[in-house]
Amino acid sequence: MTEKSTEAKVEEAQTAALRIAGLSDEARADALESIADAIDANREEILAANEKDVAEAEQLLEAGEYTQALVDRLELSPSKLESIAEMVRSVADQEDPLGKTQTARELDEDLELYKNTVPIGVVGTIFESRPDALVQIAALCLRSGNAVILKGGSEASHSNRVLFELIEEATADVPDGWAQLIEARADVDTVLEMDDSIDLVMPRGSSEFVSYIQDNTSIPVLGHTEGVCHVYVDADADLSMATDIAYDAKVQYPAVCNAVETLLVHEDVAEEFLPMIAERYEDAGVEMRGDEASRAIVPMEEASDADWETEYGDLVVAVRVVESLREATGHITAHGSKHTDSIVTDDSDRAARFMRSLDSASVFHNASTRFADGYRYGLGAEVGISTGKIHARGPVGLEGLTTYQYYLEGDGQIVGTYAGADAKPFVHEDFDGSWTPGSLSDR
Amino acid sequence: MTEKSTEAKVEEAQTAALRIAGLSDEARADALESIADAIDANREEILAANEKDVAEAEQLLEAGEYTQALVDRLELSPSKLESIAEMVRSVADQEDPLGKTQTARELDEDLELYKNTVPIGVVGTIFESRPDALVQIAALCLRSGNAVILKGGSEASHSNRVLFELIEEATADVPDGWAQLIEARADVDTVLEMDDSIDLVMPRGSSEFVSYIQDNTSIPVLGHTEGVCHVYVDADADLSMATDIAYDAKVQYPAVCNAVETLLVHEDVAEEFLPMIAERYEDAGVEMRGDEASRAIVPMEEASDADWETEYGDLVVAVRVVESLREATGHITAHGSKHTDSIVTDDSDRAARFMRSLDSASVFHNASTRFADGYRYGLGAEVGISTGKIHARGPVGLEGLTTYQYYLEGDGQIVGTYAGADAKPFVHEDFDGSWTPGSLSDR
Repeated sequence: MTEKSTEAKVEEAQTAALRIAGLSDEARADALESIADAIDANREEILAANEKDVAEAEQLLEAGEYTQALVDRLELSPSKLESIAEMVRSVADQEDPLGKTQTARELDEDLELYKNTVPIGVVGTIFESRPDALVQIAALCLRSGNAVILKGGSEASHSNRVLFELIEEATADVPDGWAQLIEARADVDTVLEMDDSIDLVMPRGSSEFVSYIQDNTSIPVLGHTEGVCHVYVDADADLSMATDIAYDAKVQYPAVCNAVETLLVHEDVAEEFLPMIAERYEDAGVEMRGDEASRAIVPMEEASDADWETEYGDLVVAVRVVESLREATGHITAHGSKHTDSIVTDDSDRAARFMRSLDSASVFHNASTRFADGYRYGLGAEVGISTGKIHARGPVGLEGLTTYQYYLEGDGQIVGTYAGADAKPFVHEDFDGSWTPGSLSDR
Repeated sequence: MTEKSTEAKVEEAQTAALRIAGLSDEARADALESIADAIDANREEILAANEKDVAEAEQLLEAGEYTQALVDRLELSPSKLESIAEMVRSVADQEDPLGKTQTARELDEDLELYKNTVPIGVVGTIFESRPDALVQIAALCLRSGNAVILKGGSEASHSNRVLFELIEEATADVPDGWAQLIEARADVDTVLEMDDSIDLVMPRGSSEFVSYIQDNTSIPVLGHTEGVCHVYVDADADLSMATDIAYDAKVQYPAVCNAVETLLVHEDVAEEFLPMIAERYEDAGVEMRGDEASRAIVPMEEASDADWETEYGDLVVAVRVVESLREATGHITAHGSKHTDSIVTDDSDRAARFMRSLDSASVFHNASTRFADGYRYGLGAEVGISTGKIHARGPVGLEGLTTYQYYLEGDGQIVGTYAGADAKPFVHEDFDGSWTPGSLSDR
């Protein structure tokens, strides 16, 4: 396996992509069940490989090169493996994202256009540490009929190799070469340059890592960089609700991208609201950093300019008092990351103004920013969160791994008939229907 | 105007983008009517500016630096101006692509998620010669609520400046700065580097030009490079139909990207079909270039390897005899450009095999490749044709200039309620509805 060049692997993936696209829903789901079974049946082997990774990581931890958090993310356990197999089965259970007819349109009699979902083709993925990422990404790509290039972190190389080999064996019925493992750091640059062969790159990791990928490839990137999310407590807010939301958005899971980083408070309610939330935050150990007006109400550290643009990922929150809704949206536009922002207000017109004037992937009214998540949105398996605006935005489900093809079923029609002085007009009428072989004759 | 830096212009466009997104359907349509009226009312001025461009171009034509075709594309006339104004009015008449609720989902009681179409933001456009391109692009961006950076060819600079100023004046009710004209070639590189401020780049011009743009920016590109389209005449084809389709696909308008470049013919029908199409092609002056098997049936030039990958854009067609449907799809996969390919056959299963095994934006059964076009597809105003697979593919209508935002309407919900041991389950049920201010309380 390791002797093949990256170029050869990508070429194999391209060939496989055309064939995997033709697999039935059932065949893809069955292959996923086989992967889950293989993980269940080979726990010992996986854990043994993972132990090697963990042992090496612990040495680097002692040497001060790795953090404890990295070692924790790396380590597998029987229960973690169980939940990985469970995750694969849940991806198998997802509704097939392929072959859906999005539009069926009669262009003219016996000339029918169908817009159908199809896989994207070859997806390049680059991820750090967690070995479960390899399994999850491979599962999502297989479910959506894509071939996948997998590049994991070197710290997980033993685990990744065993998991990859199990996946390869378990999917013997899937066109050969649909999944490819690459291991050397240098191969990443090769992948990023293959814009003729790879259709989409999905990086997973830190903001810096995703930004690096975006800056170094002309392949479209589906990824998530920063999450500087805001909660704005309006003049007309229910302050008890605002306190609950601001607390949940910061404290429920501070390390994630949809946690709130900056609290904006209308001056009319600041004197009442800030002490309420300060008390809750204090109990949870949240550090508040505020502008002058906030600090005049509740004692806290002074916020620097950098605080307004920082994704703390921790129990820290920046606080600013604003004079108006417009000042709040202006602040968010200037300092936010277009991820998720929420207004708390009882006035639905003001909520609509807030929501309409922000260019964020998710804008909420009277709800915690933490709801911005594929599972909570009901998207099923989450492919990732995108901070781009093109193709897929915000939490992305399996449909983010699809594109579409136009199928035109005719009866010998030529364009000459519909052009020139005696041009026949088009009908252009949508109908309910989906493309199947011979669909024209069936109607 | 010319004193502002490109960076300042893009920044103005960013500010305007947020505000233009909030304009009503009617306001955007009215602004387009004003543009059309301004073009009608200022024909003299536009034609005078255009004459300067044409005079300069003719000098360069004499010097051998420009082609006659370029001069022809550049030249405006009263009737061309009439059709430009007409085009703007037809864009105004298009259905509003914004504010459409694609999904409305109940996450829980009084917690409703709406996925609504919104403008992309700032669109950078770079186009060559034709002054009508500036008007069309500006009209499409305004209709879809986007701010636009316009960079035309230097050969049309007088025409473009007058048209741009008319558009600016006519859209005084649209947030200031929504359209920006840049004129220097060097500013293109500035634009291509502003990936934090520009959301999408739409280049229009030759394949080489579009490829250059793609290779020199990390901004997503919506563009069209090559069209190497195929017609495959299957063993079960109606040969009279196949002749009509192959003729129309090549002859009806050979200069365009959806014209056929290579004809693939199953060996079972080659002896009967090739003389039929050769006779029709001869009448139209089409040059055929064939492989050995084709030349054994009909005398023609020998096709070189390069012929299989050439977009002639002219009355030339490459011809190859294949042994099987698989050989045909293999040829298309190896040499095609994933634009548009058509099979002629009476066997719908074989048609489906052909259509499913190709990764082209449009795959046809018994129809001319020339149908691959936004107008014929019924998409209304055509934004362009995309040869990418991400975001928009094939002919692209106004919806290609939109993305979506998630709006969540709640009643104070926090994620803590739906997590942990006593987690409340989500409802996740789609309903018919669209987001409006206060939509939660209205249901």
